[in-house]
Amino acid sequence: MHAMTILILLPERDATDFSLLLAARNPNLDIRTWPDVGDINDIEYVIVWNHPAGELKKYPNLKVIASFGAGVDHIFKDPDLPANVTITRLVDDSLTQQMSEYVAGVILNHRLHLTTYREFQAAALWSPKHARSGNTVCLLGLGKIGLSVAAYLNRLGFTIRGWSQSPKDIENVKTFHGEQSLSDAVGNADYIVCLLPLTTETENILDKDLFRKVKKGAYLINVGRGGHLNEEDLMDSLYHGQLDGACLDVFKTEPLPDDHAFWRHPNIHLTPHTASVTNLEKAASQIYENYQNMNNNKPLLNRVDPSKGY
Amino acid sequence: MHAMTILILLPERDATDFSLLLAARNPNLDIRTWPDVGDINDIEYVIVWNHPAGELKKYPNLKVIASFGAGVDHIFKDPDLPANVTITRLVDDSLTQQMSEYVAGVILNHRLHLTTYREFQAAALWSPKHARSGNTVCLLGLGKIGLSVAAYLNRLGFTIRGWSQSPKDIENVKTFHGEQSLSDAVGNADYIVCLLPLTTETENILDKDLFRKVKKGAYLINVGRGGHLNEEDLMDSLYHGQLDGACLDVFKTEPLPDDHAFWRHPNIHLTPHTASVTNLEKAASQIYENYQNMNNNKPLLNRVDPSKGY
Repeated sequence: MHAMTILILLPERDATDFSLLLAARNPNLDIRTWPDVGDINDIEYVIVWNHPAGELKKYPNLKVIASFGAGVDHIFKDPDLPANVTITRLVDDSLTQQMSEYVAGVILNHRLHLTTYREFQAAALWSPKHARSGNTVCLLGLGKIGLSVAAYLNRLGFTIRGWSQSPKDIENVKTFHGEQSLSDAVGNADYIVCLLPLTTETENILDKDLFRKVKKGAYLINVGRGGHLNEEDLMDSLYHGQLDGACLDVFKTEPLPDDHAFWRHPNIHLTPHTASVTNLEKAASQIYENYQNMNNNKPLLNRVDPSKGY
Repeated sequence: MHAMTILILLPERDATDFSLLLAARNPNLDIRTWPDVGDINDIEYVIVWNHPAGELKKYPNLKVIASFGAGVDHIFKDPDLPANVTITRLVDDSLTQQMSEYVAGVILNHRLHLTTYREFQAAALWSPKHARSGNTVCLLGLGKIGLSVAAYLNRLGFTIRGWSQSPKDIENVKTFHGEQSLSDAVGNADYIVCLLPLTTETENILDKDLFRKVKKGAYLINVGRGGHLNEEDLMDSLYHGQLDGACLDVFKTEPLPDDHAFWRHPNIHLTPHTASVTNLEKAASQIYENYQNMNNNKPLLNRVDPSKGY
């Protein structure tokens, strides 16, 4: 009989709750939580988020690395990643719905000056402002999440432009692809939203070259990864008024260090990586289903293409 | 030939811009701006917002009172309003669109804790919270604006309940009507939004009787009129935790006095009557069209029923 072993390798969190949700699906599972790994030969299937580099090559029988979220950049940044192992990620309708609501909420907040009025309130200042009228949103990234955000914003009456690495044809979205068309994509937009996977091609894509091409007064929303953003270039662009402001949910280092300048910048709003949060129940179902697929030699769901990195 | 006289009676604003927009439609118009009225016998058509009580009965030939906004409560509160005068209001797609965006923006702001994170930011506090999941919105008021807000929120996936004085049948909205069903309407809602006209029946409708019937932790949005809200009852309900918070755009006295307790309440957010702002171009078009209708003995657009008060 098969060993039924799953390793949970989530160094940043107490995995007790997730372990119980997996056990509820099959009480015979042998669930181990890193660093209490036991016999390394037992480990064929591992659930990871930000594992220590080099750790995964220690398991001689490893077959599947399951990311504990939608992103897999945290896996590929390990230079000693074992070859010929299947990598999967979570795909979850609630993740795409959360992301759509976050992007729409941030855009409407900016358009309606809700945060500004809250700041006026502290000074008992009654000072009406015109709502902003800019209506064009450029989405960088047109994967499942990008498509969902585009459809959601379309329903609210926004005009959507979208950019991706490879060509796409999407209803009600003016699409652009490839590095040379990035400036055309962002050029006319009032809001620029980064929803890209983090790869060597997209690292630091939000930099001074891009900010020089945006419409004066545009607003940036980064819900991709901290690695997409050149932080100094953002500060410069805000200083010179090219960008009007930014809302950031992801950072190069999380939690953002106490002394980071972003905390105190009046035109940078930040949220603590909450735009889209893994639902534990759904994650447990999807991860257990793929574990069964592995054992039954069935194709795995939501496989990642290592040559693309997403 | 007809005198072509229009009186602008907008004591709270400099009407120069609006006067120019009307003149652009017909250079032969004799546009007068209160208090420089000239011969009171010339005045058949007046544009008003918050006129001094008793002023309108001074004009013996007055035929039409045109409200400078969607609401007409400011007209009916005059105890000396002349009888047998036609009253009209502005109906403007941009007003309904603005209101929809405002209500959605406030709901998403609350759901995503955007203001809370902004307050955390001042203290460099990284403290992720779960997004709120409550999805049911009760709209009080199902006129043109209420219908538009309902459709907009439906497109975002919210479940809509609606209450009005008279029965309505609206797709995708569970409707209630009449005073006795108000508690059923608000009972299950996560968000309660007041979009009612202000009449003797709806004055102080947002009071302790209603707040006792809401779900614990519900959130109130008042974009009707300040007169809909019993301010002390709101403070009590927040103190006892029945309501989680409120966002108010309208107040009994505007601007809200400096020493008003709402300015300093942590769970009351306020905006300075900006949820829906009259577009001057559209207002000028609609008001001039009705002026022509009056002169040509055609039916006027957007007449108000004085027996209902809206």
